[in-house]
Amino acid sequence: MKIIIVGAAGDIGQAVCTALGDRHDLIRVGRTSGDMTVDISDAGAVEQMFRHIGRVDAVVSTAGDAHFAPLAEQTSDTLAHGLAQKVMGQINLVLAGLPHVADAGSFTLTSGILDRDPVRGGVGAATAKGALAGFVTGAAIEMPRGLRLNVVSPGLLDVSAPRYGALFAGHVPVSSSRVGQAYVKSVEGAVTGQVICVD
Amino acid sequence: MKIIIVGAAGDIGQAVCTALGDRHDLIRVGRTSGDMTVDISDAGAVEQMFRHIGRVDAVVSTAGDAHFAPLAEQTSDTLAHGLAQKVMGQINLVLAGLPHVADAGSFTLTSGILDRDPVRGGVGAATAKGALAGFVTGAAIEMPRGLRLNVVSPGLLDVSAPRYGALFAGHVPVSSSRVGQAYVKSVEGAVTGQVICVD
Repeated sequence: MKIIIVGAAGDIGQAVCTALGDRHDLIRVGRTSGDMTVDISDAGAVEQMFRHIGRVDAVVSTAGDAHFAPLAEQTSDTLAHGLAQKVMGQINLVLAGLPHVADAGSFTLTSGILDRDPVRGGVGAATAKGALAGFVTGAAIEMPRGLRLNVVSPGLLDVSAPRYGALFAGHVPVSSSRVGQAYVKSVEGAVTGQVICVD
Repeated sequence: MKIIIVGAAGDIGQAVCTALGDRHDLIRVGRTSGDMTVDISDAGAVEQMFRHIGRVDAVVSTAGDAHFAPLAEQTSDTLAHGLAQKVMGQINLVLAGLPHVADAGSFTLTSGILDRDPVRGGVGAATAKGALAGFVTGAAIEMPRGLRLNVVSPGLLDVSAPRYGALFAGHVPVSSSRVGQAYVKSVEGAVTGQVICVD
């Protein structure tokens, strides 16, 4: 398959590339690096990317940073910004990608564990992750041409623990290879409308 | 208790007022009617409302319309608009209300069934409902002074079925009185961080 991986340089993106790279033709996309660069919060730029790349079989997104801050320091603006970046960026990929993904192809988005196992400072991330789960549940039943749509919701990755572990009190990291297999399940498997949890 | 009910004139709002009205002092708020009017998507207007009303024991929000449209007609703008109205409006009530709710008081928001039992045209609503669930899960663990935060997620109300039933193929409406009791559980009970489903 020809597969776009958005966020390919991140910890999750690298796990996806490792899991899919030996059997598929990967197009690595990032905000600042990769075969192409794109800011997915810009719907027009996302459309341009798809027109440039042409027909693909699958789109995987591992993009969208979460902003950590205590609830007492969150404002309407900080939370709205998280929705615009993490949620709308990935939704833009689906809406703009629909005409460009081959019949029976797939979209796989990325959320995370914080809307089912919350941590202090994670309210913005939890809101975004819940929104992505709702979007996938709602949109999957209306996908045309047998297209599928899932979201992978991984715990803290082992390779990310040195940098982010202090924010995830008591969370046991998950192996990057298991996380990669969740994307294999979504891309090569048959499920749709699922939140694929890796705990 | 002194309780603010935002969206009091709607179908769910009326069910809440019926369930809570005989034991509590209700302040009915709406976009265009009620004891006070406010546009909750305007964070500044929400702050002004709380300063005007002063100390309360609970805030209930049943506000925020869902925009129904087929996935093929949804755009980045229509979905972002839903997040701004339905999600950020209710989040504004929590963030602005924090200093004004008495110790051990509560916030109760409203989502709906579409992120667990989707229907055609409901992707915007499903995204918003998922976001609210994520927000409540993430924010409840950081609430100060014993404040609680829940979201009620009702199915289609019996009283709403004549207008909206055609959009909810095969959904069995839930009784308004049962929906009202979910808000009683959140306001008078002790749970926090919960999505209280009424199916």
